[in-house]
Amino acid sequence: MTKRTELSGMNCSMARALDVVGEWWTLLVVREVFFGRHHFTQMHETLGIARNILADRLATLVDEGVLEKRPDPGDGRRSEYHLTEKGRDLLPLLLVLMQWGDKWADDGAGPPLVFNNRETGARIEPALVDAANGRPIDFSQVRPRPGPGFRADAWPALRSVHQRWQNAV
Amino acid sequence: MTKRTELSGMNCSMARALDVVGEWWTLLVVREVFFGRHHFTQMHETLGIARNILADRLATLVDEGVLEKRPDPGDGRRSEYHLTEKGRDLLPLLLVLMQWGDKWADDGAGPPLVFNNRETGARIEPALVDAANGRPIDFSQVRPRPGPGFRADAWPALRSVHQRWQNAV
Repeated sequence: MTKRTELSGMNCSMARALDVVGEWWTLLVVREVFFGRHHFTQMHETLGIARNILADRLATLVDEGVLEKRPDPGDGRRSEYHLTEKGRDLLPLLLVLMQWGDKWADDGAGPPLVFNNRETGARIEPALVDAANGRPIDFSQVRPRPGPGFRADAWPALRSVHQRWQNAV
Repeated sequence: MTKRTELSGMNCSMARALDVVGEWWTLLVVREVFFGRHHFTQMHETLGIARNILADRLATLVDEGVLEKRPDPGDGRRSEYHLTEKGRDLLPLLLVLMQWGDKWADDGAGPPLVFNNRETGARIEPALVDAANGRPIDFSQVRPRPGPGFRADAWPALRSVHQRWQNAV
């Protein structure tokens, strides 16, 4: 697919990440596994997606190393899907996505789901902070800079971006 | 589009959020504006996307209230696109997505971009924490629970999910 190739070749980790996960059903399949639904039939039940499309998505996620396929310990003829480390690393993205949806894509009834700590029962509210000081990130202060993998040809105007930044966002 | 309707009707804020932003180019357009590139021609230059597709995406993002279209103060015949509050609220998602891409979709050269604090020059590393205590979220402890907008018909197995949770992720 042309679009995928273009994105994976982009000199930007957001674009490359979208190439793997930027497809509607991918993150919802990760959600299912995160919620403990490891079988094809369970995912099919909740997602309401055609069986062939779900099978295709699962195969892609296994190929990408986001999911791992294992025999069901209770029934070796069935398979279970589990998150790999790469898949578990998508969970912060799911929480941040859900928080945005709770705020901006509400149907008027409030959040369908909340998250509790299993042991304490306390509500978990994700917050994005700067790891260096634990404070919320002030996006008006965030400035993109070339990193080790920067290619100047891919960012024709990064210098002017920096100038514009003074007035931006 | 059928897919969009299905997702927006789902009883899940992740799915509803994906209905708005779960499309490859949407988040990259938000990235462009975040990086201070407010004009059609600038976005076209970096994204390498067909003009008609970019125009369509921009119109959709204005309709969705993610971007706001304003006359360019320097040239009233041109338009600028700016992030609304709804659009700025996507910036945590972009940073988390980029962090995942830096780790899992690296081409071997390292991160193309890093983020600095504009005033101090210090590197900004986003971290997702539990707002209640500032500690990193332990995903093995996260349990989904019905929220105010929960519909039991949409989550046929939430009870069994909770049982499965004991062994999950």
